[in-house]
Amino acid sequence: MTDGTYVGPKPVKPIPQEIRPSQENALRRWGEIRDWVLGLPALERVFLVGAGGSYSGLQAAHYLLDRESALPVVSVNSDEFYHRASPSVGPGALVIALSAAGATAETVRAASWAQERGAAVVAVTLKSDGPLAQAVSNGFISLNGDGNQIVLQLLVLATLAREGHDVSAKIDALHALPDATDAALRGFEPLAAAIAKDMKDVPVTYLLASGPLQGMGSTFTSCFLQEMQWMHAATINANEFFQGPFEVFDKQTKSILFLGEDATRPMVERAERFLSEHSGTTHRIDSRDLELAGVPSDQRGFIAPLVFYPMMFRLAENYASVRGYTLEGRRYMWQFAY
Amino acid sequence: MTDGTYVGPKPVKPIPQEIRPSQENALRRWGEIRDWVLGLPALERVFLVGAGGSYSGLQAAHYLLDRESALPVVSVNSDEFYHRASPSVGPGALVIALSAAGATAETVRAASWAQERGAAVVAVTLKSDGPLAQAVSNGFISLNGDGNQIVLQLLVLATLAREGHDVSAKIDALHALPDATDAALRGFEPLAAAIAKDMKDVPVTYLLASGPLQGMGSTFTSCFLQEMQWMHAATINANEFFQGPFEVFDKQTKSILFLGEDATRPMVERAERFLSEHSGTTHRIDSRDLELAGVPSDQRGFIAPLVFYPMMFRLAENYASVRGYTLEGRRYMWQFAY
Repeated sequence: MTDGTYVGPKPVKPIPQEIRPSQENALRRWGEIRDWVLGLPALERVFLVGAGGSYSGLQAAHYLLDRESALPVVSVNSDEFYHRASPSVGPGALVIALSAAGATAETVRAASWAQERGAAVVAVTLKSDGPLAQAVSNGFISLNGDGNQIVLQLLVLATLAREGHDVSAKIDALHALPDATDAALRGFEPLAAAIAKDMKDVPVTYLLASGPLQGMGSTFTSCFLQEMQWMHAATINANEFFQGPFEVFDKQTKSILFLGEDATRPMVERAERFLSEHSGTTHRIDSRDLELAGVPSDQRGFIAPLVFYPMMFRLAENYASVRGYTLEGRRYMWQFAY
Repeated sequence: MTDGTYVGPKPVKPIPQEIRPSQENALRRWGEIRDWVLGLPALERVFLVGAGGSYSGLQAAHYLLDRESALPVVSVNSDEFYHRASPSVGPGALVIALSAAGATAETVRAASWAQERGAAVVAVTLKSDGPLAQAVSNGFISLNGDGNQIVLQLLVLATLAREGHDVSAKIDALHALPDATDAALRGFEPLAAAIAKDMKDVPVTYLLASGPLQGMGSTFTSCFLQEMQWMHAATINANEFFQGPFEVFDKQTKSILFLGEDATRPMVERAERFLSEHSGTTHRIDSRDLELAGVPSDQRGFIAPLVFYPMMFRLAENYASVRGYTLEGRRYMWQFAY
């Protein structure tokens, strides 16, 4: 066991180079992904399966399916999926299993179990030789997590195409993503630095988000703040804010707000109005502030979560820089069996 | 705006008298509930809709459907349900809307919207003259929340009966509930007092639960601790514990563990083994410690969540007693429009 890797404050790491190639790599898979989904013998319902950051990482794809498809969709933690063992997992079910390195044992077990039950199982993962890709018959491999996010959206779009939807506008918008992401990340850096500096020592970090951004919020508070910075933190879905959690806010409370341009935005705006009056500083990260060149206005809500994904990693790097704890440090994870 | 109602520590309120009559009232509705569900022209999928404590309150019913039924089931916050506006909400969909007093505006709007879309909508609520019951065509009225929990389970059992399942063993087990609850609540009081005394001033309360008990955990941390005691708190589903949140635990961290007897118990036991070694005090509330007289061993996992529900209220009363803040006090809720 380690107490982590305190190395002291240090300059923030540069924006990684591999985002664009991974996005472009994923975009090239569209034909193959569409053909695979169109070729499934039956498609009656969809399970999105993952754990931790990969569970949260399913929420933007889930949102798009909910909004557009008549198919029933569930996103569920891998271990829960396995233990609940719903009788509906079998032929006709499409199971999309997400795991970055593909090494999460619970996800490998869940995907294998679903495949044995006769479901169509597809792995979305970075490594063709990882345990998840090895365990299932079908896999789409990305170069990094940004690619995974695009592959997930392509799987959703293929599902919609199978239902008869015209998805060409969304496919076109996706092709604007690499340039839009590049510009957004450069523009976000000063805000990320300011948030990290102001929030680095708060007793509890609350993050509010909604719809397709809620998963990004959970990844940030669970995987980055709790897991990598050992900070108390929780994401509150804006839909639940006024059902209890808002009572804990006062002028000493600082929080972070993710605002998208999808149908759930009014819920976050309502929370924001409350916070501006009754809470301390609220840091807002709003997709409306992003240029997103080449993305038509009616596709911004669809594209925004894919840009928030690497932005969240940049926010984490800025925390690591001012707090002096690397994102690679763990007290327990990977240190011993548990 | 009020800063709440600090009245100073005071004796814990007695166990309420209305639990048994409300349970018995709900049990008498079985024939009517079964006939209503059997009479639906189509039943292809189920939406469980509520907000806050009522959203959390849907999880035990959701769990039973997942385990036993082939129908697709989603539980969703009322506002999210309305804003997502999934095309699958319409004829063939059963929408079960839960709201205790039936006055939650978001739930009333969601239920009305689903009914306009042609879904079969049923209200589970305490008040026949409340806005929710008035807004929808079908309602089952309970005397209090314990009755609501039973009505929800009866709706699930009717759905299973419609699918051809024999639900008689579960109906029989439910009839043992009033006596079993009575005994469990009396037995729980010393443990509830000890937990409240030890946890009343912790900086953040983490509660771990799984499966049908996860919603009870969320109700406790969101509605009781955040909303009524203004304490920082979060429920961690045991299925996500090792995916990040466990890194925030150390010897100073105290937590509460809910253990049931359902298929998801192994996940909580795994977390418990970790906590016993790496965390401070862990308070465990385990359904195995309940007598549950008259409940056959194979029905204990089904019955336990229904007993945990009033136990959680007793735990809250014990917090209120030692902390000196009543459960009725609010800073914002009901004080002004938001």
